[in-house]
Amino acid sequence: MKLTHPTVVCAVLTLSASTGLLAQGQPDPLVDPYREAATRIIAAATADSFAWQRLARLTDTFGHRLSGSKSLEQAIDWIVAEMRRDGLDNPRTQPVMVPHWVRGEESAELISPRRHPLPMLGLGGSIGTPTKGITAEVLVVSDFDELSTRAAEAKGKIVLFDPEWRNYGETGRYRRAGAVAAARAGAVALLIRSVGPYGIRTPHTGSMGYDGTVPRIPAAAITMEDAMMLHRMQDRGDRVVVTLRMQAKTLPDARSRNVMAEVRGSERPEEVVVLGGHIDSWDVGTGAMDDAGGVVAAWEAVRLIQRLGLKPRRTIRVVGWTNEENGLRGGRAYRDSLGAEVTNHVLAIESDAGVFRPKGFGMTGSDSAVAIVRRVARLLAPIGADSITTPGGGADIGPLMDQGVPGMGLWVDGERYFWYHHTPGDMVDKLDPADVARCVATMAVLAYVIADLPERLPQQEPATR
Amino acid sequence: MKLTHPTVVCAVLTLSASTGLLAQGQPDPLVDPYREAATRIIAAATADSFAWQRLARLTDTFGHRLSGSKSLEQAIDWIVAEMRRDGLDNPRTQPVMVPHWVRGEESAELISPRRHPLPMLGLGGSIGTPTKGITAEVLVVSDFDELSTRAAEAKGKIVLFDPEWRNYGETGRYRRAGAVAAARAGAVALLIRSVGPYGIRTPHTGSMGYDGTVPRIPAAAITMEDAMMLHRMQDRGDRVVVTLRMQAKTLPDARSRNVMAEVRGSERPEEVVVLGGHIDSWDVGTGAMDDAGGVVAAWEAVRLIQRLGLKPRRTIRVVGWTNEENGLRGGRAYRDSLGAEVTNHVLAIESDAGVFRPKGFGMTGSDSAVAIVRRVARLLAPIGADSITTPGGGADIGPLMDQGVPGMGLWVDGERYFWYHHTPGDMVDKLDPADVARCVATMAVLAYVIADLPERLPQQEPATR
Repeated sequence: MKLTHPTVVCAVLTLSASTGLLAQGQPDPLVDPYREAATRIIAAATADSFAWQRLARLTDTFGHRLSGSKSLEQAIDWIVAEMRRDGLDNPRTQPVMVPHWVRGEESAELISPRRHPLPMLGLGGSIGTPTKGITAEVLVVSDFDELSTRAAEAKGKIVLFDPEWRNYGETGRYRRAGAVAAARAGAVALLIRSVGPYGIRTPHTGSMGYDGTVPRIPAAAITMEDAMMLHRMQDRGDRVVVTLRMQAKTLPDARSRNVMAEVRGSERPEEVVVLGGHIDSWDVGTGAMDDAGGVVAAWEAVRLIQRLGLKPRRTIRVVGWTNEENGLRGGRAYRDSLGAEVTNHVLAIESDAGVFRPKGFGMTGSDSAVAIVRRVARLLAPIGADSITTPGGGADIGPLMDQGVPGMGLWVDGERYFWYHHTPGDMVDKLDPADVARCVATMAVLAYVIADLPERLPQQEPATR
Repeated sequence: MKLTHPTVVCAVLTLSASTGLLAQGQPDPLVDPYREAATRIIAAATADSFAWQRLARLTDTFGHRLSGSKSLEQAIDWIVAEMRRDGLDNPRTQPVMVPHWVRGEESAELISPRRHPLPMLGLGGSIGTPTKGITAEVLVVSDFDELSTRAAEAKGKIVLFDPEWRNYGETGRYRRAGAVAAARAGAVALLIRSVGPYGIRTPHTGSMGYDGTVPRIPAAAITMEDAMMLHRMQDRGDRVVVTLRMQAKTLPDARSRNVMAEVRGSERPEEVVVLGGHIDSWDVGTGAMDDAGGVVAAWEAVRLIQRLGLKPRRTIRVVGWTNEENGLRGGRAYRDSLGAEVTNHVLAIESDAGVFRPKGFGMTGSDSAVAIVRRVARLLAPIGADSITTPGGGADIGPLMDQGVPGMGLWVDGERYFWYHHTPGDMVDKLDPADVARCVATMAVLAYVIADLPERLPQQEPATR
């Protein structure tokens, strides 16, 4: 998950507050005709653990799926073949050239005041170190402000940012922009405290960036435990020295693909409700939560609609976008492939916050579109997933949303999302089969009803884009 | 922590139920004279974070303290010097020969059905593998019963036990006895799912044993995530192959020491209330929770009693026992050093369940001793640490308890204890300074009052030993 379009809830507006329309329990001529279908979808989705089992098979069999890796392309091949076996319409892939960063061997070790292994992960996009590594004194700072104040001390050192966790947007800045800030102060490498609220000596990777104004320096994350310990050592007057070794490098762009299939619309097949997640992942753990779970839940939603014999007026398409994590090339290529036809996209739904227990959706769209979705979402009250908050969306559907397509992000109980995010712990056991099934039901009901409504969902007004 | 003497609560008996004596709030001529001292102790212990800071300094500076390591002996040297600076009575060490197991380099990797790194920790006491490692097919079983049923399939394979977590006593059996069971079935190595209820790809080490009846085979723990994944792979019919490499070996016994100091009793100095924890740890993380925290909290309890000018009738002694984790040699040497004088030990208190928020103590002793301790513990009601449950104790004080000395184990909120137990995540940030301070207060009040009561606490009756 990235924060191109926030999925974090800023405000919860009730239907009555936002529209003055129908109160809970009143008849709704728009939505009532879908009650039976919604009940069937929810019953089918929650009857077994098919989605979780498919997710386990996908992530166990292929492992992580970093852009440029064989395992990503093998997973895509398997998905498209399975979609064919499912009997979905038009399973296919769409070529996308993606960045190809490789981690290689890497390690970090505290050398002074004592030897101590530092579990670490290089940040995606980082350069490597010389073969013998970089051994240098460490300057620990809490934040960018402290680095500014102490910039004169940073020259020739490894800068370690040790910010307390606040939220992903804010604390993630040290991962994204830390290398440039450290290099500007003359540092020879960047370390950051892993971006997350909790860990059991757990390093977190993720993307980082350079700019053209300062030298590129190697960048890696160490665990929160070790960052805090190095900080305490510095505060006690100890000389802190670390050796960092990284073989990371960026190869020429590689071929990847978006993967997709559909239930073709019965009346207006050219109009599309698209839902999905990103099939690529970081190269640690098996990327089950981020974001194979989103892809599989959306895929299962479409499979269920097809299996139940529902015939939506419009096309419902599932997409596994490639290269969300370190390029967003898949989402852009998908948008670009549509050209002027993008206006036929009625709604875009992304699941990229983990398929934990669903609460509803975050949505970005016109007031009238949000009002309609709120009415439809009431069909999800039986599984507690009927909240529609604004704004919302997702990184992969951001390019569509930029063109005025209403966007929604599946909103889940995210308490532990950032415990596992971009870590070796992101494996399928962290997801509960019943929660995954509820996510399937949530996306399936919403997508089906919006795809079948007599009138298409209004586009975003230019002012709200 | 080991389970030689259970710290787990089996029954909570209220004072009225067990003794029919004083109800809460009634005057108690035995305990009321100590109200002022208890209030002073609690206020002093909770006024600052001195104990946490000392614990951080100890564990940051010396790191882990496995028996036989230099870091253990350096930590002991530092402690005895600090005890001298504290002005405690008779700081000293007591020689103990300890087992000397060394881990060396180690790794495990899944080879089939795909390559996947398996974070692991060799089990303490294990032999190593040949230099090129052991590459073999894996037989995954859920428990000893399944291995018995499938013993014919185990020959020449690596047996992986994948039991669900129940509790440390029960699930820990696979770590302790798994290698013998696997070797009996002809396995060439043992893997276990790490013993704990939760992890973020976190391996747990701990002691294991061999017997003379079957060959010694290398033994290691992998993470719960990977154990479950290998189990799923086997269930799908995949051929699961792992390469295990371990340089572990056992060297000749090494010199270590128990470390101790006192507040000397003013009237009956030969009678002793002893409290402490174990100063050794496993060689991962920094052993802050298990069990430097117990040592430092007990030490700080004694330092506070001394600093507050309290003059208990009997001697209060803090001990950091060595080699609890893989030998229990320190606790035995301490008991042996007492000879017949062991009868002068009035009470033994151990903290080895983590210095989390204290609830009280588990206790093993005569009914009359438990009744007295329950009355004393009411002084801890202001910090919510006034529960006395039975039984209780600790591994290091087990040898004393076997001689009839009443034993108590500090009882804390153990919700996350086994998340960190024997893992790289056992570092000081997992402990809250306010909780550590409350543990100090809890042990200090209890130890001081029992040491100062006009009549000594009754020994265990033979029947209850």
